[in-house]
Amino acid sequence: MEISLAVSAQLLRKAFNIVLTTHIHPDGDALGSLLALYFYLVSTGKCIRLLLDDDIPASLAFLPGTEEIQKLPETPETADLLVVLDASDAERIGKVKHMVKAPILNIDHHISNTKYADYLYLDSAAAATGEIIMQLLELEKASITKEMATCLFTAIATDCGFFRYANTSPNALRYAADLVEYGAKPSKIAECLDTRPLAAIKVLPKILETLEIRELSATGQVAFLTVMPSLLQELNDDTEGLINYPRNIAGVEIAVLLKVVNDNVIRVSLRSKITDVSRVALTFGGGGHARAAGCTINGPVDLVKDQLISAIEKLSKNDGRSG
Amino acid sequence: MEISLAVSAQLLRKAFNIVLTTHIHPDGDALGSLLALYFYLVSTGKCIRLLLDDDIPASLAFLPGTEEIQKLPETPETADLLVVLDASDAERIGKVKHMVKAPILNIDHHISNTKYADYLYLDSAAAATGEIIMQLLELEKASITKEMATCLFTAIATDCGFFRYANTSPNALRYAADLVEYGAKPSKIAECLDTRPLAAIKVLPKILETLEIRELSATGQVAFLTVMPSLLQELNDDTEGLINYPRNIAGVEIAVLLKVVNDNVIRVSLRSKITDVSRVALTFGGGGHARAAGCTINGPVDLVKDQLISAIEKLSKNDGRSG
Ligand SMILES: [Mn+2]
Ligand SMILES: [Mn+2]
Repeated sequence: MEISLAVSAQLLRKAFNIVLTTHIHPDGDALGSLLALYFYLVSTGKCIRLLLDDDIPASLAFLPGTEEIQKLPETPETADLLVVLDASDAERIGKVKHMVKAPILNIDHHISNTKYADYLYLDSAAAATGEIIMQLLELEKASITKEMATCLFTAIATDCGFFRYANTSPNALRYAADLVEYGAKPSKIAECLDTRPLAAIKVLPKILETLEIRELSATGQVAFLTVMPSLLQELNDDTEGLINYPRNIAGVEIAVLLKVVNDNVIRVSLRSKITDVSRVALTFGGGGHARAAGCTINGPVDLVKDQLISAIEKLSKNDGRSG
Repeated sequence: MEISLAVSAQLLRKAFNIVLTTHIHPDGDALGSLLALYFYLVSTGKCIRLLLDDDIPASLAFLPGTEEIQKLPETPETADLLVVLDASDAERIGKVKHMVKAPILNIDHHISNTKYADYLYLDSAAAATGEIIMQLLELEKASITKEMATCLFTAIATDCGFFRYANTSPNALRYAADLVEYGAKPSKIAECLDTRPLAAIKVLPKILETLEIRELSATGQVAFLTVMPSLLQELNDDTEGLINYPRNIAGVEIAVLLKVVNDNVIRVSLRSKITDVSRVALTFGGGGHARAAGCTINGPVDLVKDQLISAIEKLSKNDGRSG
């Protein structure tokens, strides 16, 4: 059932034993929203547990309260309410859904939300779930502490690429302003988020040497960057930001990151300036947005490049015909 | 004479023939402020000229109005007012000061301003001169166009590192929010600013291979990155962002970028997390801020590294003694 933010607040007020969770592979918005809501609910004297069916990424361990996040219990438990943040699909919370017996309140901003929860507050215009939590705290006249502000600034900033992505709205920037007033320190947060293991810098030259640019007459330049299996391992599978190298090159229209999982499995990320790359991804059973999409293709990496080029050329030809 | 923003607005209202300029090596704040004020003053029917004693960097050529910026005249000219934006020192505007005979109105946010102008409006709490121009436009009840918004968002965003630096204030974020409402597109602006020539990516592996980390018992890790003369040339002297590679490595306290101008001249940039590196720079006749400073040292690069290490160790020892 879709409910308003006011009704969501009411549900939280009525419940006493509350479990909070978020999606696996948690990002800044997932953990920031989770922890900010945790600090607020604890301050109202309730019994709150944080469960997560995954580890905390090293780059987010700086968030206050991460030490309160628990692994799953051995046997199912009951609670008055299970609050699921930033997860658009029940599968995204892992085994938490089997281990907590409680009605689910889902607070989310993904337009792709599958409406799996008993109660859903969905605001797809919000740049981040953190923006919704901020609204909730304002509605409840909560006093926002420095810790809560740090969590929510991180939530909003990470989900809109530190105010660089197309979802950077006046609201996102205004909430960020309020959060700095409440004590969030953008420079400290950015410093923590930007920290990389030495290994990531060490392997970068080897990855950059794979840069390959192909010129397509209809589309413009396509730039490929390839991460071979051994380097992928050294990076602990964390390829965050790598696609920006081909993407930021002057004249490149489509950037492609090829993560070679093994000789026959390539995970592909696509970014573009104008071209609708979600249609390219769809050709290979993937999906995404017009300017950021992904898919997995089976085959050796050189063949995969050729297949991608063919798909891009075919789609641009069809556009030409229909246009 | 230091004046208020209201008096600055009055001076602009009274003048008809106005020349606008900004500092050489112009950055996003310099050009964004210049062009936003240009669009506003032109809309009031005045005769406005834009002069700059330098070229427009390729990464800022996307700003609307850059085609209106002129090179210096052959002979000195007169005007009612010369408005100097974002320049803390008369030397920073190059030969414009000899070529325009007019009283100078300087609008700036640098605390180091030398107060060279006839009229100075200085707001050192502003994150960017663009923030002051925004206030001026509000004071004048100007209608802010999409072009002006794009210029001012760029001004504010670049001077606070896209909201990552310590000067990212609630005000800076709130003005950014207003500017998005007036039509600035953060994702388009970021895309333009992030674009790099292919050569910059090609030389990156060679630069990254120079990474050297030294462990100091008192201070922690110092990471050096060196740009040799031939690579410096290929980069057109644009080393923007390179210092972030050593800076973002987990465990590194001080990051050092060494730009080898020739066998005997090294330009040094220093960044730190805790250490006051302005004192290190001062040892070599340079200066800057506590966490971001620079200097030029004569000598071969390996000797320069040793000298920097000695200076850092000496300063940390003195701290220990006094503490
Ligand atoms: Mn999110
Ligand atoms: Mn400035």
